[in-house]
Amino acid sequence: MDKRPIGIFDSGVGGLTVTGQVMKVMPDEKIVYFGDTARVPYGSKGKETITRFSCQDVRFLLSKDVKAVIVACNTASSNSLEHLKETFDVPVFGTVIPGAVEAVKRTRNKKVGIIATAATVRSGAYEKEIKKADPEVEVYAKACPLFVPLAEEGWADSEVAYLTAKEYLTPMLEEGVDTIILGCTHYPLLRRCIEKVVGENVSLVDPAYETALRVEKYLEENDMKGEENFAEHEFFVSDSTDMFDRICSEALKNKYSATEINIEKY
Amino acid sequence: MDKRPIGIFDSGVGGLTVTGQVMKVMPDEKIVYFGDTARVPYGSKGKETITRFSCQDVRFLLSKDVKAVIVACNTASSNSLEHLKETFDVPVFGTVIPGAVEAVKRTRNKKVGIIATAATVRSGAYEKEIKKADPEVEVYAKACPLFVPLAEEGWADSEVAYLTAKEYLTPMLEEGVDTIILGCTHYPLLRRCIEKVVGENVSLVDPAYETALRVEKYLEENDMKGEENFAEHEFFVSDSTDMFDRICSEALKNKYSATEINIEKY
Repeated sequence: MDKRPIGIFDSGVGGLTVTGQVMKVMPDEKIVYFGDTARVPYGSKGKETITRFSCQDVRFLLSKDVKAVIVACNTASSNSLEHLKETFDVPVFGTVIPGAVEAVKRTRNKKVGIIATAATVRSGAYEKEIKKADPEVEVYAKACPLFVPLAEEGWADSEVAYLTAKEYLTPMLEEGVDTIILGCTHYPLLRRCIEKVVGENVSLVDPAYETALRVEKYLEENDMKGEENFAEHEFFVSDSTDMFDRICSEALKNKYSATEINIEKY
Repeated sequence: MDKRPIGIFDSGVGGLTVTGQVMKVMPDEKIVYFGDTARVPYGSKGKETITRFSCQDVRFLLSKDVKAVIVACNTASSNSLEHLKETFDVPVFGTVIPGAVEAVKRTRNKKVGIIATAATVRSGAYEKEIKKADPEVEVYAKACPLFVPLAEEGWADSEVAYLTAKEYLTPMLEEGVDTIILGCTHYPLLRRCIEKVVGENVSLVDPAYETALRVEKYLEENDMKGEENFAEHEFFVSDSTDMFDRICSEALKNKYSATEINIEKY
Protein backbone atom coordinates (compact mmCIF):
# COMPACT_ATOMS: atom_id res chain seq x y z
CA MET A 1 0.00 0.00 0.00
CA ASP A 2 1.18 3.51 -0.79
CA LYS A 3 -0.74 6.53 0.40
CA ARG A 4 1.17 9.04 -1.72
CA PRO A 5 -0.79 10.80 -4.47
CA ILE A 6 -0.74 10.12 -8.21
CA GLY A 7 0.71 13.03 -10.20
CA ILE A 8 -0.93 14.03 -13.48
CA PHE A 9 0.25 16.77 -15.82
CA ASP A 10 -0.95 18.26 -19.07
CA SER A 11 -0.17 21.35 -21.13
CA GLY A 12 -3.44 22.87 -19.91
CA VAL A 13 -6.98 21.68 -19.25
CA GLY A 14 -7.14 18.76 -21.71
CA GLY A 15 -5.67 16.35 -19.16
CA LEU A 16 -8.78 16.75 -17.04
CA THR A 17 -10.47 14.15 -19.29
CA VAL A 18 -7.74 11.69 -18.25
CA THR A 19 -8.10 12.84 -14.63
CA GLY A 20 -11.82 12.09 -14.76
CA GLN A 21 -11.11 8.55 -15.92
CA VAL A 22 -8.46 8.05 -13.23
CA MET A 23 -10.93 9.21 -10.57
CA LYS A 24 -13.54 6.78 -11.89
CA VAL A 25 -11.18 3.77 -12.12
CA MET A 26 -9.30 4.50 -8.86
CA PRO A 27 -11.65 6.39 -6.54
CA ASP A 28 -9.39 5.71 -3.54
CA GLU A 29 -6.40 7.60 -4.92
CA LYS A 30 -5.51 11.19 -4.21
CA ILE A 31 -4.51 13.17 -7.31
CA VAL A 32 -2.12 16.11 -7.74
CA TYR A 33 -2.74 17.77 -11.12
CA PHE A 34 -0.55 20.30 -12.87
CA GLY A 35 -1.77 22.19 -15.96
CA ASP A 36 0.86 24.30 -17.73
CA THR A 37 -1.69 26.94 -18.72
CA ALA A 38 0.94 29.70 -19.06
CA ARG A 39 2.73 27.87 -21.89
CA VAL A 40 -0.18 25.93 -23.43
CA PRO A 41 -0.34 24.51 -26.09
CA TYR A 42 2.54 22.07 -26.50
CA GLY A 43 1.14 20.59 -29.73
CA SER A 44 2.47 23.27 -32.08
CA LYS A 45 5.98 23.26 -30.61
CA GLY A 46 9.26 21.41 -31.17
CA LYS A 47 10.38 18.17 -29.47
CA GLU A 48 13.14 19.80 -27.40
CA THR A 49 10.88 22.53 -26.06
CA ILE A 50 8.15 19.99 -25.23
CA THR A 51 10.70 17.81 -23.43
CA ARG A 52 12.16 20.73 -21.45
CA PHE A 53 8.68 21.81 -20.36
CA SER A 54 7.69 18.20 -19.48
CA CYS A 55 10.78 17.78 -17.28
CA GLN A 56 9.83 20.92 -15.35
CA ASP A 57 6.28 19.58 -14.97
CA VAL A 58 7.55 16.26 -13.55
CA ARG A 59 9.97 18.04 -11.20
CA PHE A 60 7.08 20.07 -9.84
CA LEU A 61 4.96 16.92 -9.30
CA LEU A 62 7.89 15.19 -7.55
CA SER A 63 8.07 18.15 -5.17
CA LYS A 64 4.56 17.04 -4.15
CA ASP A 65 5.85 13.52 -3.35
CA VAL A 66 3.85 11.63 -5.99
CA LYS A 67 4.23 7.85 -6.33
CA ALA A 68 3.62 7.80 -10.09
CA VAL A 69 3.28 10.31 -12.93
CA ILE A 70 0.68 10.21 -15.69
CA VAL A 71 1.52 12.28 -18.76
CA ALA A 72 -2.07 13.22 -19.56
CA CYS A 73 -1.06 15.00 -22.76
CA ASN A 74 -0.63 13.12 -26.01
CA THR A 75 1.92 15.64 -27.30
CA ALA A 76 4.16 15.23 -24.24
CA SER A 77 3.60 11.45 -24.19
CA SER A 78 4.62 11.04 -27.81
CA ASN A 79 7.60 13.41 -27.69
CA SER A 80 9.05 13.05 -24.20
CA LEU A 81 7.96 9.82 -22.49
CA GLU A 82 11.19 7.92 -23.02
CA HIS A 83 13.26 10.88 -21.85
CA LEU A 84 11.11 11.27 -18.72
CA LYS A 85 11.40 7.54 -17.92
CA GLU A 86 15.18 7.69 -18.22
CA THR A 87 15.50 10.92 -16.25
CA PHE A 88 13.27 10.42 -13.24
CA ASP A 89 13.17 7.76 -10.57
CA VAL A 90 9.39 7.37 -10.58
CA PRO A 91 7.06 5.26 -12.74
CA VAL A 92 5.86 7.42 -15.66
CA PHE A 93 2.84 6.52 -17.81
CA GLY A 94 1.78 8.02 -21.13
CA THR A 95 -1.36 7.83 -23.22
CA VAL A 96 0.22 6.50 -26.41
CA ILE A 97 0.81 2.80 -25.63
CA PRO A 98 -2.64 2.22 -24.06
CA GLY A 99 -4.32 3.98 -27.01
CA ALA A 100 -2.29 2.14 -29.64
CA VAL A 101 -2.86 -1.28 -28.06
CA GLU A 102 -6.61 -0.72 -27.83
CA ALA A 103 -6.81 0.43 -31.48
CA VAL A 104 -5.00 -2.71 -32.65
CA LYS A 105 -7.47 -4.81 -30.64
CA ARG A 106 -10.45 -3.09 -32.21
CA THR A 107 -9.56 -2.84 -35.88
CA ARG A 108 -11.03 -5.55 -38.13
CA ASN A 109 -9.47 -4.50 -41.45
CA LYS A 110 -6.10 -3.47 -39.99
CA LYS A 111 -6.47 0.17 -41.01
CA VAL A 112 -6.17 2.65 -38.15
CA GLY A 113 -6.40 6.45 -38.26
CA ILE A 114 -4.80 8.82 -35.77
CA ILE A 115 -5.89 12.40 -35.28
CA ALA A 116 -3.72 14.55 -33.03
CA THR A 117 -1.65 17.73 -32.72
CA ALA A 118 1.09 18.51 -35.24
CA ALA A 119 3.79 17.55 -32.72
CA THR A 120 2.17 14.19 -31.91
CA VAL A 121 1.77 13.30 -35.58
CA ARG A 122 5.35 14.41 -36.36
CA SER A 123 6.72 12.24 -33.53
CA GLY A 124 5.38 9.04 -35.14
CA ALA A 125 4.92 7.61 -31.63
CA TYR A 126 1.43 6.14 -32.15
CA GLU A 127 2.49 4.56 -35.43
CA LYS A 128 5.55 3.02 -33.75
CA GLU A 129 3.50 1.46 -30.95
CA ILE A 130 0.81 0.20 -33.33
CA LYS A 131 3.43 -1.45 -35.53
CA LYS A 132 5.01 -2.98 -32.42
CA ALA A 133 1.67 -4.52 -31.47
CA ASP A 134 0.87 -5.65 -35.03
CA PRO A 135 3.23 -4.85 -37.92
CA GLU A 136 0.48 -5.49 -40.46
CA VAL A 137 -1.70 -2.59 -39.38
CA GLU A 138 -1.64 0.36 -41.77
CA VAL A 139 -1.65 3.77 -40.11
CA TYR A 140 -3.07 7.07 -41.42
CA ALA A 141 -2.23 10.12 -39.31
CA LYS A 142 -3.61 13.65 -39.60
CA ALA A 143 -2.79 16.74 -37.57
CA CYS A 144 -5.95 18.70 -36.71
CA PRO A 145 -4.77 21.99 -35.19
CA LEU A 146 -8.21 23.63 -35.36
CA PHE A 147 -9.90 21.03 -33.13
CA VAL A 148 -8.53 22.35 -29.81
CA PRO A 149 -9.56 25.99 -30.38
CA LEU A 150 -12.96 24.82 -31.68
CA ALA A 151 -13.51 22.79 -28.51
CA GLU A 152 -12.31 25.65 -26.30
CA GLU A 153 -14.55 28.14 -28.12
CA GLY A 154 -17.54 25.88 -27.28
CA TRP A 155 -18.30 25.40 -30.99
CA ALA A 156 -18.35 21.58 -30.85
CA ASP A 157 -21.79 21.32 -32.43
CA SER A 158 -21.42 24.10 -35.01
CA GLU A 159 -21.41 23.96 -38.80
CA VAL A 160 -17.83 25.29 -38.65
CA ALA A 161 -16.74 22.28 -36.55
CA TYR A 162 -18.55 19.86 -38.88
CA LEU A 163 -16.91 21.31 -42.03
CA THR A 164 -13.52 21.32 -40.31
CA ALA A 165 -13.86 17.67 -39.25
CA LYS A 166 -14.93 16.74 -42.78
CA GLU A 167 -11.90 18.48 -44.26
CA TYR A 168 -9.54 16.71 -41.85
CA LEU A 169 -11.10 13.24 -41.87
CA THR A 170 -12.28 12.62 -45.44
CA PRO A 171 -8.85 11.48 -46.75
CA MET A 172 -8.41 8.79 -44.09
CA LEU A 173 -12.02 7.65 -44.50
CA GLU A 174 -11.35 7.26 -48.22
CA GLU A 175 -8.40 5.04 -47.27
CA GLY A 176 -10.90 2.84 -45.42
CA VAL A 177 -9.88 3.18 -41.74
CA ASP A 178 -12.33 1.39 -39.40
CA THR A 179 -10.78 2.70 -36.16
CA ILE A 180 -9.62 6.21 -35.25
CA ILE A 181 -7.57 7.14 -32.18
CA LEU A 182 -8.59 10.47 -30.60
CA GLY A 183 -4.93 11.28 -30.04
CA CYS A 184 -5.38 14.58 -28.18
CA THR A 185 -7.13 14.94 -24.84
CA HIS A 186 -9.41 17.69 -26.17
CA TYR A 187 -10.85 15.66 -29.02
CA PRO A 188 -13.39 13.68 -26.98
CA LEU A 189 -15.16 17.05 -26.55
CA LEU A 190 -15.78 16.96 -30.34
CA ARG A 191 -16.81 13.29 -30.29
CA ARG A 192 -20.37 13.86 -31.52
CA CYS A 193 -19.21 16.06 -34.38
CA ILE A 194 -16.53 13.54 -35.38
CA GLU A 195 -19.07 10.67 -35.20
CA LYS A 196 -21.34 12.61 -37.55
CA VAL A 197 -18.54 12.74 -40.11
CA VAL A 198 -17.15 9.20 -39.77
CA GLY A 199 -20.44 7.32 -39.36
CA GLU A 200 -21.25 4.43 -37.03
CA ASN A 201 -18.99 1.84 -38.66
CA VAL A 202 -15.83 3.57 -37.51
CA SER A 203 -14.76 2.96 -33.92
CA LEU A 204 -13.31 5.89 -31.91
CA VAL A 205 -10.63 5.08 -29.33
CA ASP A 206 -10.18 7.44 -26.38
CA PRO A 207 -6.76 6.68 -24.83
CA ALA A 208 -7.73 8.30 -21.49
CA TYR A 209 -9.72 5.32 -20.18
CA GLU A 210 -7.13 2.79 -21.36
CA THR A 211 -4.42 4.81 -19.61
CA ALA A 212 -6.29 4.81 -16.30
CA LEU A 213 -6.71 1.00 -16.49
CA ARG A 214 -3.01 0.53 -17.19
CA VAL A 215 -1.97 2.63 -14.20
CA GLU A 216 -4.38 0.78 -11.93
CA LYS A 217 -2.92 -2.56 -13.02
CA TYR A 218 0.63 -1.35 -12.34
CA LEU A 219 -0.21 -0.06 -8.85
CA GLU A 220 -2.04 -3.31 -8.07
CA GLU A 221 0.84 -5.52 -9.21
CA ASN A 222 3.39 -3.46 -7.29
CA ASP A 223 1.37 -3.19 -4.10
CA MET A 224 1.25 0.60 -4.52
CA LYS A 225 -2.48 1.22 -4.39
CA GLY A 226 -3.81 3.80 -1.99
CA GLU A 227 -6.62 2.74 0.27
CA GLU A 228 -9.37 5.07 1.29
CA ASN A 229 -7.17 8.08 0.68
CA PHE A 230 -9.84 10.68 1.08
CA ALA A 231 -7.43 13.61 1.16
CA GLU A 232 -8.55 16.29 -1.26
CA HIS A 233 -7.23 16.32 -4.80
CA GLU A 234 -4.93 19.24 -5.52
CA PHE A 235 -4.76 21.29 -8.70
CA PHE A 236 -1.95 23.60 -9.79
CA VAL A 237 -1.60 25.79 -12.88
CA SER A 238 1.04 28.18 -14.25
CA ASP A 239 -1.37 30.91 -15.47
CA SER A 240 -4.12 32.59 -13.45
CA THR A 241 -6.62 30.24 -11.87
CA ASP A 242 -10.00 31.82 -12.73
CA MET A 243 -10.68 30.18 -16.03
CA PHE A 244 -9.12 26.89 -14.97
CA ASP A 245 -11.31 26.62 -11.88
CA ARG A 246 -14.44 27.03 -13.97
CA ILE A 247 -13.43 24.48 -16.61
CA CYS A 248 -12.07 22.05 -14.01
CA SER A 249 -15.20 22.14 -11.88
CA GLU A 250 -17.36 21.60 -14.98
CA ALA A 251 -15.22 18.76 -16.34
CA LEU A 252 -15.01 16.88 -13.03
CA LYS A 253 -18.50 17.75 -11.74
CA ASN A 254 -17.14 19.00 -8.43
CA LYS A 255 -15.92 22.33 -7.11
CA TYR A 256 -12.13 22.68 -7.20
CA SER A 257 -9.80 25.65 -6.67
CA ALA A 258 -6.38 25.58 -8.26
CA THR A 259 -3.19 27.25 -6.99
CA GLU A 260 -0.96 29.27 -9.34
CA ILE A 261 2.75 28.43 -9.38
CA ASN A 262 5.75 29.67 -11.42
CA ILE A 263 6.74 26.54 -13.37
CA GLU A 264 9.88 28.19 -14.74
CA LYS A 265 11.47 27.78 -11.30
CA TYR A 266 11.40 23.97 -11.55
CA MET B 1 22.01 59.73 -34.94
CA ASP B 2 21.94 56.38 -33.20
CA LYS B 3 23.24 53.27 -34.91
CA ARG B 4 21.85 50.83 -32.35
CA PRO B 5 19.11 48.47 -33.58
CA ILE B 6 15.37 48.67 -32.99
CA GLY B 7 14.07 45.76 -30.87
CA ILE B 8 10.76 44.16 -31.78
CA PHE B 9 9.06 41.34 -29.89
CA ASP B 10 5.92 39.28 -30.33
CA SER B 11 4.49 36.10 -28.83
CA GLY B 12 5.44 34.29 -32.05
CA VAL B 13 5.37 35.01 -35.77
CA GLY B 14 2.51 37.53 -35.88
CA GLY B 15 4.85 40.44 -35.17
CA LEU B 16 6.52 39.86 -38.52
CA THR B 17 3.68 41.87 -40.12
CA VAL B 18 4.74 44.82 -37.95
CA THR B 19 8.40 44.11 -38.75
CA GLY B 20 7.62 44.26 -42.46
CA GLN B 21 6.06 47.70 -42.03
CA VAL B 22 9.01 48.92 -39.94
CA MET B 23 11.42 47.77 -42.66
CA LYS B 24 9.36 49.57 -45.30
CA VAL B 25 9.04 52.84 -43.33
CA MET B 26 12.62 52.82 -41.96
CA PRO B 27 14.82 50.91 -44.41
CA ASP B 28 17.99 52.29 -42.79
CA GLU B 29 17.36 50.72 -39.40
CA LYS B 30 18.73 47.41 -38.20
CA ILE B 31 16.14 45.22 -36.44
CA VAL B 32 16.51 42.65 -33.66
CA TYR B 33 13.35 40.51 -33.49
CA PHE B 34 12.34 38.11 -30.72
CA GLY B 35 9.41 35.70 -31.17
CA ASP B 36 8.39 33.78 -28.02
CA THR B 37 7.44 30.70 -30.03
CA ALA B 38 7.90 28.34 -27.06
CA ARG B 39 5.14 30.05 -25.06
CA VAL B 40 2.92 31.33 -27.88
CA PRO B 41 0.07 32.34 -27.77
CA TYR B 42 -0.25 35.12 -25.19
CA GLY B 43 -3.84 35.95 -26.21
CA SER B 44 -5.54 33.24 -24.18
CA LYS B 45 -3.59 33.95 -20.99
CA GLY B 46 -3.91 36.17 -17.91
CA LYS B 47 -2.57 39.71 -17.51
CA GLU B 48 0.10 38.79 -14.96
CA THR B 49 1.49 35.96 -17.06
CA ILE B 50 1.52 38.16 -20.19
CA THR B 51 3.33 40.90 -18.26
CA ARG B 52 5.92 38.50 -16.82
CA PHE B 53 6.62 37.07 -20.27
CA SER B 54 6.79 40.56 -21.83
CA CYS B 55 9.35 41.72 -19.24
CA GLN B 56 11.56 38.74 -20.09
CA ASP B 57 11.20 39.57 -23.79
CA VAL B 58 12.29 43.19 -23.21
CA ARG B 59 15.21 42.11 -20.99
CA PHE B 60 16.41 39.86 -23.80
CA LEU B 61 16.17 42.71 -26.36
CA LEU B 62 18.04 45.06 -24.01
CA SER B 63 20.84 42.48 -23.86
CA LYS B 64 21.15 43.18 -27.61
CA ASP B 65 21.60 46.93 -26.93
CA VAL B 66 18.44 48.16 -28.68
CA LYS B 67 17.63 51.87 -28.73
CA ALA B 68 13.83 51.36 -28.70
CA VAL B 69 11.36 48.48 -28.22
CA ILE B 70 8.27 47.85 -30.32
CA VAL B 71 5.71 45.57 -28.70
CA ALA B 72 4.53 44.00 -31.97
CA CYS B 73 1.83 42.00 -30.23
CA ASN B 74 -1.56 43.52 -29.49
CA THR B 75 -2.07 41.24 -26.49
CA ALA B 76 1.18 42.36 -24.85
CA SER B 77 0.59 45.99 -25.89
CA SER B 78 -2.84 46.09 -24.35
CA ASN B 79 -1.95 44.22 -21.14
CA SER B 80 1.62 45.23 -20.35
CA LEU B 81 2.66 48.44 -22.11
CA GLU B 82 2.34 50.72 -19.09
CA HIS B 83 4.23 48.27 -16.90
CA LEU B 84 7.03 47.99 -19.48
CA LYS B 85 7.29 51.76 -19.81
CA GLU B 86 7.59 52.14 -16.03
CA THR B 87 10.03 49.28 -15.65
CA PHE B 88 12.57 49.81 -18.41
CA ASP B 89 14.77 52.76 -19.27
CA VAL B 90 14.15 52.57 -23.03
CA PRO B 91 11.38 54.02 -25.21
CA VAL B 92 8.66 51.36 -25.61
CA PHE B 93 5.98 51.53 -28.32
CA GLY B 94 2.80 49.46 -28.60
CA THR B 95 0.24 48.94 -31.36
CA VAL B 96 -2.81 50.10 -29.44
CA ILE B 97 -2.51 53.90 -29.46
CA PRO B 98 -1.59 54.16 -33.18
CA GLY B 99 -4.45 51.80 -34.10
CA ALA B 100 -6.99 53.57 -31.90
CA VAL B 101 -6.03 57.06 -33.14
CA GLU B 102 -6.29 55.97 -36.79
CA ALA B 103 -9.70 54.36 -36.23
CA VAL B 104 -11.04 57.56 -34.66
CA LYS B 105 -9.76 59.51 -37.69
CA ARG B 106 -11.48 57.18 -40.12
CA THR B 107 -14.91 56.59 -38.61
CA ARG B 108 -17.71 58.75 -40.03
CA ASN B 109 -20.56 57.54 -37.83
CA LYS B 110 -18.49 57.22 -34.62
CA LYS B 111 -19.01 53.46 -34.34
CA VAL B 112 -15.82 51.44 -34.21
CA GLY B 113 -15.40 47.67 -33.93
CA ILE B 114 -12.37 45.89 -32.48
CA ILE B 115 -11.52 42.27 -33.18
CA ALA B 116 -8.68 40.78 -31.17
CA THR B 117 -7.61 38.01 -28.79
CA ALA B 118 -9.55 37.32 -25.60
CA ALA B 119 -6.83 38.97 -23.50
CA THR B 120 -6.77 42.13 -25.64
CA VAL B 121 -10.55 42.48 -25.52
CA ARG B 122 -10.60 41.83 -21.77
CA SER B 123 -7.97 44.52 -21.16
CA GLY B 124 -10.21 47.24 -22.62
CA ALA B 125 -7.05 49.03 -23.84
CA TYR B 126 -8.31 49.90 -27.34
CA GLU B 127 -11.57 51.18 -25.95
CA LYS B 128 -9.73 53.36 -23.43
CA GLU B 129 -7.51 54.95 -26.10
CA ILE B 130 -10.42 55.48 -28.49
CA LYS B 131 -12.44 57.21 -25.77
CA LYS B 132 -9.40 59.33 -24.93
CA ALA B 133 -9.18 60.48 -28.56
CA ASP B 134 -12.94 61.00 -28.89
CA PRO B 135 -15.30 60.22 -26.00
CA GLU B 136 -18.27 60.13 -28.36
CA VAL B 137 -17.12 57.09 -30.31
CA GLU B 138 -19.02 53.90 -29.49
CA VAL B 139 -16.90 50.76 -29.34
CA TYR B 140 -17.89 47.15 -30.09
CA ALA B 141 -15.26 44.54 -29.23
CA LYS B 142 -15.23 40.84 -30.07
CA ALA B 143 -12.65 38.19 -29.23
CA CYS B 144 -11.99 35.92 -32.23
CA PRO B 145 -9.84 33.04 -30.90
CA LEU B 146 -10.27 30.91 -34.03
CA PHE B 147 -8.72 33.48 -36.39
CA VAL B 148 -5.09 32.81 -35.44
CA PRO B 149 -5.24 29.02 -35.89
CA LEU B 150 -7.19 29.49 -39.14
CA ALA B 151 -4.48 31.80 -40.48
CA GLU B 152 -1.72 29.46 -39.30
CA GLU B 153 -3.46 26.45 -40.89
CA GLY B 154 -3.41 28.34 -44.21
CA TRP B 155 -7.23 28.24 -44.41
CA ALA B 156 -7.63 32.00 -44.96
CA ASP B 157 -9.72 31.54 -48.10
CA SER B 158 -11.79 28.54 -46.95
CA GLU B 159 -15.52 28.22 -46.35
CA VAL B 160 -14.66 27.45 -42.70
CA ALA B 161 -12.88 30.83 -42.37
CA TYR B 162 -15.78 32.65 -44.03
CA LEU B 163 -18.40 31.06 -41.73
CA THR B 164 -16.23 31.77 -38.71
CA ALA B 165 -15.79 35.42 -39.68
CA LYS B 166 -19.53 35.74 -40.26
CA GLU B 167 -20.28 34.29 -36.83
CA TYR B 168 -17.83 36.67 -35.13
CA LEU B 169 -18.59 39.85 -37.09
CA THR B 170 -22.36 39.82 -37.73
CA PRO B 171 -23.30 41.28 -34.31
CA MET B 172 -21.04 44.34 -34.67
CA LEU B 173 -22.14 44.86 -38.27
CA GLU B 174 -25.74 44.87 -37.03
CA GLU B 175 -24.70 47.61 -34.59
CA GLY B 176 -23.56 49.62 -37.62
CA VAL B 177 -19.79 49.92 -37.19
CA ASP B 178 -18.14 51.61 -40.20
CA THR B 179 -14.54 50.97 -39.05
CA ILE B 180 -12.96 47.80 -37.61
CA ILE B 181 -9.52 47.57 -36.01
CA LEU B 182 -7.63 44.36 -36.86
CA GLY B 183 -6.42 44.18 -33.25
CA CYS B 184 -4.18 41.12 -33.60
CA THR B 185 -1.12 40.92 -35.82
CA HIS B 186 -2.35 37.70 -37.48
CA TYR B 187 -5.64 39.15 -38.68
CA PRO B 188 -4.31 40.97 -41.77
CA LEU B 189 -3.67 37.45 -43.12
CA LEU B 190 -7.47 36.97 -43.10
CA ARG B 191 -8.12 40.41 -44.58
CA ARG B 192 -9.75 39.20 -47.80
CA CYS B 193 -12.05 36.84 -45.92
CA ILE B 194 -13.01 39.59 -43.45
CA GLU B 195 -13.64 42.03 -46.32
CA LYS B 196 -15.99 39.50 -47.93
CA VAL B 197 -18.05 39.47 -44.72
CA VAL B 198 -18.03 43.19 -43.87
CA GLY B 199 -18.40 44.61 -47.41
CA GLU B 200 -16.66 47.60 -48.93
CA ASN B 201 -18.31 50.27 -46.79
CA VAL B 202 -16.47 49.18 -43.66
CA SER B 203 -12.88 50.40 -43.29
CA LEU B 204 -10.29 47.99 -41.83
CA VAL B 205 -7.49 49.50 -39.73
CA ASP B 206 -4.19 47.62 -39.48
CA PRO B 207 -2.27 49.08 -36.50
CA ALA B 208 1.07 47.74 -37.81
CA TYR B 209 1.62 50.54 -40.35
CA GLU B 210 0.48 53.26 -37.94
CA THR B 211 2.88 51.91 -35.33
CA ALA B 212 5.85 52.03 -37.71
CA LEU B 213 5.04 55.67 -38.57
CA ARG B 214 4.83 56.61 -34.90
CA VAL B 215 8.22 55.08 -34.11
CA GLU B 216 9.80 56.82 -37.10
CA LYS B 217 8.47 60.16 -35.92
CA TYR B 218 9.84 59.61 -32.41
CA LEU B 219 13.31 58.66 -33.66
CA GLU B 220 13.32 61.67 -35.98
CA GLU B 221 12.30 64.09 -33.23
CA ASN B 222 14.88 62.72 -30.82
CA ASP B 223 17.71 62.55 -33.31
CA MET B 224 17.86 58.77 -32.86
CA LYS B 225 17.53 57.62 -36.46
CA GLY B 226 20.05 55.19 -37.84
CA GLU B 227 21.69 56.10 -41.12
CA GLU B 228 22.60 53.54 -43.68
CA ASN B 229 22.80 50.86 -41.05
CA PHE B 230 23.17 47.93 -43.39
CA ALA B 231 24.06 45.42 -40.68
CA GLU B 232 21.92 42.33 -41.03
CA HIS B 233 18.68 42.05 -39.14
CA GLU B 234 18.74 39.43 -36.39
CA PHE B 235 15.93 37.05 -35.42
CA PHE B 236 15.64 35.07 -32.19
CA VAL B 237 12.99 32.57 -31.06
CA SER B 238 12.40 30.45 -27.96
CA ASP B 239 11.26 27.26 -29.76
CA SER B 240 13.07 25.47 -32.59
CA THR B 241 13.89 27.61 -35.59
CA ASP B 242 12.79 25.43 -38.56
CA MET B 243 9.21 26.53 -38.86
CA PHE B 244 10.00 30.12 -37.93
CA ASP B 245 12.66 30.46 -40.62
CA ARG B 246 10.20 29.32 -43.27
CA ILE B 247 7.40 31.64 -42.17
CA CYS B 248 9.79 34.56 -41.58
CA SER B 249 11.41 34.27 -44.99
CA GLU B 250 7.97 34.08 -46.65
CA ALA B 251 6.56 37.02 -44.70
CA LEU B 252 9.54 39.31 -45.28
CA LYS B 253 10.42 38.12 -48.81
CA ASN B 254 14.03 37.51 -47.89
CA LYS B 255 16.00 34.58 -46.48
CA TYR B 256 16.53 34.78 -42.71
CA SER B 257 17.83 32.28 -40.15
CA ALA B 258 16.78 32.65 -36.53
CA THR B 259 18.72 31.65 -33.42
CA GLU B 260 17.06 29.70 -30.60
CA ILE B 261 17.43 31.05 -27.05
CA ASN B 262 16.08 30.05 -23.62
CA ILE B 263 13.86 33.01 -22.72
CA GLU B 264 13.25 31.69 -19.21
CA LYS B 265 16.77 32.77 -18.29
CA TYR B 266 15.95 36.46 -18.81
